[in-house]
Formats: sequence, C-alpha cells, structure tokens
Amino acid sequence: MVETIQWTPDGVVMIDQTKLPRQVVYVTCKSYEEVASAIVDMIVRGAPAIGVAAAMGVALGMQQADASRLDQEMERICARLAGTRPTAVNLFWAIDRMKRLYATLRGKPVEEIRAALAAEARLVKEEDIEINRAMGRHGAPLVPEGKTVLTHCNAGALATAGYGTALGVIRAAIEAGKKIDVFADETRPFLQGARLTAWELQQDGIPTTLITDNMAGYFMRQGRIGCVVVGADRIAANGDVANKVGTYSVAVLAKENGVPFYVAAPVSTLDLTLAHGDMIPIEQRASKEVTEVFGVPVAPEGIGVQNPAFDVTPSRYVTAIITERGVARAPFEESLRALAEQ
Amino acid sequence: MVETIQWTPDGVVMIDQTKLPRQVVYVTCKSYEEVASAIVDMIVRGAPAIGVAAAMGVALGMQQADASRLDQEMERICARLAGTRPTAVNLFWAIDRMKRLYATLRGKPVEEIRAALAAEARLVKEEDIEINRAMGRHGAPLVPEGKTVLTHCNAGALATAGYGTALGVIRAAIEAGKKIDVFADETRPFLQGARLTAWELQQDGIPTTLITDNMAGYFMRQGRIGCVVVGADRIAANGDVANKVGTYSVAVLAKENGVPFYVAAPVSTLDLTLAHGDMIPIEQRASKEVTEVFGVPVAPEGIGVQNPAFDVTPSRYVTAIITERGVARAPFEESLRALAEQ
Repeated sequence: MVETIQWTPDGVVMIDQTKLPRQVVYVTCKSYEEVASAIVDMIVRGAPAIGVAAAMGVALGMQQADASRLDQEMERICARLAGTRPTAVNLFWAIDRMKRLYATLRGKPVEEIRAALAAEARLVKEEDIEINRAMGRHGAPLVPEGKTVLTHCNAGALATAGYGTALGVIRAAIEAGKKIDVFADETRPFLQGARLTAWELQQDGIPTTLITDNMAGYFMRQGRIGCVVVGADRIAANGDVANKVGTYSVAVLAKENGVPFYVAAPVSTLDLTLAHGDMIPIEQRASKEVTEVFGVPVAPEGIGVQNPAFDVTPSRYVTAIITERGVARAPFEESLRALAEQ
Repeated sequence: MVETIQWTPDGVVMIDQTKLPRQVVYVTCKSYEEVASAIVDMIVRGAPAIGVAAAMGVALGMQQADASRLDQEMERICARLAGTRPTAVNLFWAIDRMKRLYATLRGKPVEEIRAALAAEARLVKEEDIEINRAMGRHGAPLVPEGKTVLTHCNAGALATAGYGTALGVIRAAIEAGKKIDVFADETRPFLQGARLTAWELQQDGIPTTLITDNMAGYFMRQGRIGCVVVGADRIAANGDVANKVGTYSVAVLAKENGVPFYVAAPVSTLDLTLAHGDMIPIEQRASKEVTEVFGVPVAPEGIGVQNPAFDVTPSRYVTAIITERGVARAPFEESLRALAEQ
C-alpha cells in the first residue's frame, strides 16, 4: 500500500499527487510553510489527508519555532495552515485538535511540548487509518453484490492516511467476499479519478473502469451501477454534503435512476455549526486547471473560466452517510447529531 | 466566419477539428476514402457537417469512379461512407439523398451524372446554412433575456456548414438584441466544448465561460442558467434525443432545477423509423480518447475504459425541439410527424 503522508526525521514526506500516475515522486516538506504550500498546490489532497497534513504541519512548525515566544508561533503557524484551503473542514478540525492539546501543555518544558505535538500528529494519522477500516466495516454491507460501484474523485488511500473512505468501503466489501467492480469518474479538472483512483485500485487488483464524468448517467440508465459511494469535504448539520465538484450531478442522476447514493466520511467531516450546506465556503481555483492538462493547453487563450472545486449535494439525494461510528440516515439532523455525540 | 467544409477543384477541404484551437489547419481530402477517414477520425464532426461531408464524399468518389461500372462504384462508395460512424442519422440521410438523385440520372452521360452529384453536394451545404438560420429564427424567442445559456459539445458553425444549430439559436438571440452569455461544457473526452465552442464563440465576440462537464449542475443550482440548448445526432419518433455523451446528465439536471432544455436540430436529424431512443445505435470509441489528452497520458497504463460517444435523453426531459420548420413540443410523436410531413 502506498504511503500518502509520513512523519520522518527529515520532515513531512508526501507522495506528490500532482504527478501521479506518470511519476511516483515523494516530496519532503522541511517546514510548516512547505506543508502549507503542499496543501495549496494539492501535492496532498483529500479532506482526511489534508487534516493529517495540517496536524503534521503544526507539529513540524513547533519543532522549529522560537522557544521564547511559543504562543505567538503557535498562533502564526495555525493561521497559515488554516488559510490554505477553505472547504474541507478536516483541516480546521485537525488544527483545533492541535491547539487544544497545546493549551494543556503551556508552561511545560519546550522539548516536552514539541514531543507531545509530534506524537499527536502521528496519532491523527494512525487514528485515520483505523477510522477508515471501521467505516469500511459499516459500509460494506450496503454495497450490492455482483454490481458496479461508481465513485467520483479520489476518496481512497491517497485522500487519507490509508485505506480510504469511499474506496475503503469498496475494499471492505471485496474483503468480505463481494464480487464487485468499480467505475471511476475521471473527475475533471484535476483528474483525481483518472490519475489517483484508477491508479490505486489498479495497484490493489480491483477491477476498475475509467469513464469521463459525463458518462456516469449513461451507465446508470443502463442499470449497471449498483450504488454510488463518494467521500466528503464537509457535511452540514442537515446532511448536505460538500464534496468534489460533480458530486451533485452524480447524486441527482442516482436518484433519477433509483441508485443508492452513499457518502463515506469520518465524524471529523461533520460541521454541525452549519445548519445547511449552502453555508459551506466553496473554493474557487485557478482557471489553468481547466484550460491546461499537464501543461498542454486545451482551450483558446483568453477564454473566461469558472472553476469551483466543490459543490453541495442537498441531503435529499443522500441515501446514507457512512461514518466510523455507524450509518446515518434521514432525518440527518438527528442521526448525525447522535453520531457526533457518541 | 470559419469555413467548416468546402467543395473545391482540389477536393473536399475541411478545417481539422482535431487540432483546433491550438492550430488552424485545413485538410484537403482528394478521394472519397480520405473523406471517410476524415469522418472516422473526427477531422470533421457534428451531425449536420457529417451529412455535408458524406454528400461531398459521394460526389467526389463518383468524379473519380470507373465510368464503365458506375452502379457498383456508387454502391461501394456509399457503403464505405455509411460505415464511418453509426449514430448521427444525417450521415445516412445525406447518402440516401445522393442515392435517390443518382437513381434519376442512370443512363445519362457520365459527365452529366458527375456534374449533377457535385451540384447536389454543394446544395446540401448551402441548404444547411439556410436551415440553421431558420432554426435560429424559431429558437431565438425561447432564449430568456439577461441570463446564461448552457450548451454541451459543439453544435456550432463547426458542426454544420455554418452558423450552427444550438449556437445558431444563440447567435440569432444575440442578433435579435438579447443580452445573454454562454456557458460551454468542455465536453470530455474529445473536448469539443473547450476546443471548438469556446473558440468559435470567442471569434464572434460572444461572452463565453468554459466549465468542466461536472460543473453544469453547480451553476444550474445557483439559478444562473436561463436555458440549455444542445444539438442532436438522431431524434426518434417519440422525441428521445441521441446527442454527445453527457447530454442526458445535463437534461436531468435541467429538469431538476426547473431550467428549460431545448434541442436544436434540422428535420434531417429525425429518424421516425425508430419508435424510441433506445433503438439508436451508440458508437463506442477508442479508449485513448479518454486516457490521453493531445497525446499526454492522464491515466495509468492498462486501465479499463468505456467510451460511449453518445447517450440518449428521453423526451420527458426535453422542453422543445427547435427545427427549421418550427418548434415541436410534447406529445412529440404528433408534433415531430407533423413537422416531417410539412
């Protein structure tokens, strides 16, 4: 299994997800600023993986911080990391977790503080893998036997510390003996499906078919798709789901064709402070992601572009939300709150 | 205005639509086999343009045919051209038209036959432009003032002999003084939206925003899209529409968001011999169109791929079908038959 992100003596090591699958390159971030840049540039991406990266970024920054003004350093490091990407709430969840721990450590010897923060960042990673396996156990029974699972973007090992959220559910279903195959939307513009999902499922020997995003409806209409499983970047209190742009379209098509639509996400993806999904900030990214593919221009110069990186799927399209603590169904206000309070 | 296809003394000249917008290159097809290859390779594409190309291919083939066995030559030329692409019915319509004319010419001097077929091919082209302008006049009143028109693929000047079907409706609305702008789906895998629609609208100074296919739902949910206008490759008797893959998804999203969904197509796109759209043959194309962009690999080697080039939109999602003879609405069995019989 590929290692998405690791804490090493040299720094935070990440597989460069902008270069896959053409090149398998590891990047070592030697400062929290480099971790922040890696998140902005999507060298690391995927809500849970961004959470792990942020925790490690905080820990790394504090290893190198001015010991005479740790409080201000902690503030500065956390602010920089929190400013990298707006949509995935796991980023803010991980930073808050590190802040809460730091608050309990204040006044202790600096080496103790540094060791505790580094241990916590490694723990965030280890827990994420456990969480994904638990999600897989809860989700596997929902996957119909002998059919195709459609997924969008990459909610796999590469989007997490390992195993994956949506792809974790698929892996668990296969480990449970189900005969299924996967259709992966290529997921323009960043091509997470073509570059990352296709690659990591191929590595695992899971039968996978790549399609362009606009083909999902064709195959749903043909009755081939048994269910859809996707990840999430933020889930509001009412069950509205922010995820990679195009998720909303897949959800509408699934409902129209009677195909169950599942979201697999850890409890850290819930943002119960937001009543509904239209309050979730949607990141707008550079137009070059749309007009160029690996540096090759695919559109006329000077054309106007919109590039929202995420969309919001209203909860009425969501069959169930699979978390590490169990499966939530409508009414989501109640079921999600119950899971969060467990 | 760009010339999509021309009959010249040197052969059939086409703008190479595989190279746009990076290079503006014209290809001269010097034999009917070269015309057939140009259709297969999508140097020329778009249902009406394919019809014109097929008519010119037949005429060109007959200029060079063995005068002692014209019947067999006609048969062979038509069979080759009919075998190029299966979905767009305009191809077969144009070939049938040339066959019907040939049947009336049999026994006449060969030079007369050749001149008549060449004149007919040029007429198919000239008529297509007139048809598109008539479609524009019928369609323009349907376009909501002050909103955005979403289109998928390229149903423009490049998909026709000129002016366009869906883009013809947009051009006519603007000529009528409406203040509108266009959102163009990039239309993977061949990128007709990014490469062709964006380019030809930019040339005309029509404000255009390029989005990836999976963003259409995001903008529909925001209320920005006033209507959708697309072309068609074949329309069954009940109003089901075969068009570029992804059209079905756009139609479902439009219905879900209360956005009118219009199809602009000439009467030659109607196939009243087919009761419904699931009888329309759907072309499957090479996997490389999905796994490579301008020769650059975007997916791991050896991954499975599906590449249906078209999908079928059931007529219940279609608000109206705009033809050169008027606008058809449900029940389409009746309205389309009435237009066809005019």
